[in-house]
Amino acid sequence: MTWSLPELPPLDLDAAAELRRIVDGKAKPLGALGRLEDLAVQLGAIQGRIDPRADRAVVLLFAGDHGLTEDGVSAYPREVTGAMVRLILEGRASVNALARAVGAEVRAIDAGVAASLPPHPMLQACKVCEGTRNAAREAAMTAEECAGALACGAEAVRAAVAAGAEVVALGEMGIGNTASASLLLHRLGPAPLADCIGVGAGHDDAGLARKQRVLAAAAERCDAREPLEVLRQFGGLEIAGMTGAALAAAAARLPVVVDGFISTAAVLVAVRLQPQVLDFCMFGHSSAERAHRLMLERLGARPLLDLGLRLGEGTGAVLALPILKSAAVMARDVASLAEVLGQA
Amino acid sequence: MTWSLPELPPLDLDAAAELRRIVDGKAKPLGALGRLEDLAVQLGAIQGRIDPRADRAVVLLFAGDHGLTEDGVSAYPREVTGAMVRLILEGRASVNALARAVGAEVRAIDAGVAASLPPHPMLQACKVCEGTRNAAREAAMTAEECAGALACGAEAVRAAVAAGAEVVALGEMGIGNTASASLLLHRLGPAPLADCIGVGAGHDDAGLARKQRVLAAAAERCDAREPLEVLRQFGGLEIAGMTGAALAAAAARLPVVVDGFISTAAVLVAVRLQPQVLDFCMFGHSSAERAHRLMLERLGARPLLDLGLRLGEGTGAVLALPILKSAAVMARDVASLAEVLGQA
Repeated sequence: MTWSLPELPPLDLDAAAELRRIVDGKAKPLGALGRLEDLAVQLGAIQGRIDPRADRAVVLLFAGDHGLTEDGVSAYPREVTGAMVRLILEGRASVNALARAVGAEVRAIDAGVAASLPPHPMLQACKVCEGTRNAAREAAMTAEECAGALACGAEAVRAAVAAGAEVVALGEMGIGNTASASLLLHRLGPAPLADCIGVGAGHDDAGLARKQRVLAAAAERCDAREPLEVLRQFGGLEIAGMTGAALAAAAARLPVVVDGFISTAAVLVAVRLQPQVLDFCMFGHSSAERAHRLMLERLGARPLLDLGLRLGEGTGAVLALPILKSAAVMARDVASLAEVLGQA
Repeated sequence: MTWSLPELPPLDLDAAAELRRIVDGKAKPLGALGRLEDLAVQLGAIQGRIDPRADRAVVLLFAGDHGLTEDGVSAYPREVTGAMVRLILEGRASVNALARAVGAEVRAIDAGVAASLPPHPMLQACKVCEGTRNAAREAAMTAEECAGALACGAEAVRAAVAAGAEVVALGEMGIGNTASASLLLHRLGPAPLADCIGVGAGHDDAGLARKQRVLAAAAERCDAREPLEVLRQFGGLEIAGMTGAALAAAAARLPVVVDGFISTAAVLVAVRLQPQVLDFCMFGHSSAERAHRLMLERLGARPLLDLGLRLGEGTGAVLALPILKSAAVMARDVASLAEVLGQA
């Protein structure tokens, strides 16, 4: 599969300015809806319209396995990735419940799960390979595999657009992927490796110490700093998928709602490749995985929610979707002060 | 109208313990859904069930006018209260847009608007009187008026329960009511008056100084400290309505989602009357009205959102509703880890 970095359109600043005037003129004190007003303007600038829309949201949930799990970077065995994707396809995982609650659709993308997954209408099967190689010892992906995973993300966005998505949320499933995200933050933040590592899905002290040793070995092995090379060396297939999806969504003027530590790492790669992708992103929440805060700081991003989540699957992005939808409906539907005064 | 302080049922601690076991046993790392898990358990403890429900939410929006506006405590004229209620009944105010976005129903309750409002299916007409008296000079309400407004809140909850509400959100509209809420916080926080006063819907420095002088005069006039007397002296009819609603909802085992500075002031009165009402409350957001943070601290309450809102109308509570709904759906629908392991 081939992939090339897409060119991104500029934000529509005329629509943004007009929408700001409209929101300022609503029947409420100036600025009284706080960040909801800024979100409405951002949506308008992305979509190039003064009647922004965020009713139809699709969660793109990328899954992949990690060679780093050989060295015990996760508290869970690698087989859990495939088992959780099957649960997601059954509609019985956390992300499905939250998506049902907020009226979003979930699509799973197999970018590289080391298990055979059954065909399913919710599943985009574009497995690049059966998980990455062990990044502590060799490059996680070949250049072709990395490009394949990026293209898989672009393909997922094309399918979502075709299905009428007005917003996409990014989520992931991949045992070991906080380890991969830590390496990406270390090189692309950049930030000292020790500040980039957390307990992930749940390590005890010994597990955390092991994770730190393995990641130190990986960082020692290769000094790559160029974003695409860092992604190839340390990334996951599902992370590359999300990077490709974020860039493709921005190219299609589609707002991107980012989830937690792993999804934000994918967006960090995208931003280092093409800084203006950030204009198209909203950050759903601040994760309890401690290095997420540092990552958000490096991006200058301000998340919408802070509810102590550290699950992934896109759950934090899904919970933020009603806020976006509310911002859009507000911008479209609330009466202007002029109308109210005309009535009074 | 008569009103008496309702007795509140205890939380169902057995349901809470069982629900905690269920949530802990879900197919996810322990605690990985953070506050969503605590919300699910609180909902179960309130409702006395291990399959908590928060799908059907009704926003109870209490409206009333304030005699304090005579002295210029608000940047807006009193007539705006009635005009905004009319806009709400037309479905064109901010709260309507947000409620549509999240699938909640809005009911307006005229507890004491100083204007004639047309009959409307969304409106509960129980006007106690045409606004309060000027609390800077005399008691805002008579004991009968205060009881009438409290009863009006209880009646609104009865109607919501009859309509199938599984959750109620509290909101308000009342020009001048941040001034009233400041006095309630001052006496019932308690807290120094200066720390309780903010810019409300939007004061310049001169307006804020005037508001401070007027509220100092009100506080000087009367040294009441007993909660019901403080409410009668300084409260608004819509605030008393929300106090009555919070207590009635708790008595009916209905979760209460509180909005911003004014709604929280009403709940502060309720808590000082009957402390266990707090167990039935969730706090939607932290308002940009600065004294709201102090009020939440006095209650030991931790809000769900922090989006810089300072509008009222229940908007901050409405934005939090999808989080509650998500918590409930998660508790009901997500598979257990045991099921997944059985399948693997």
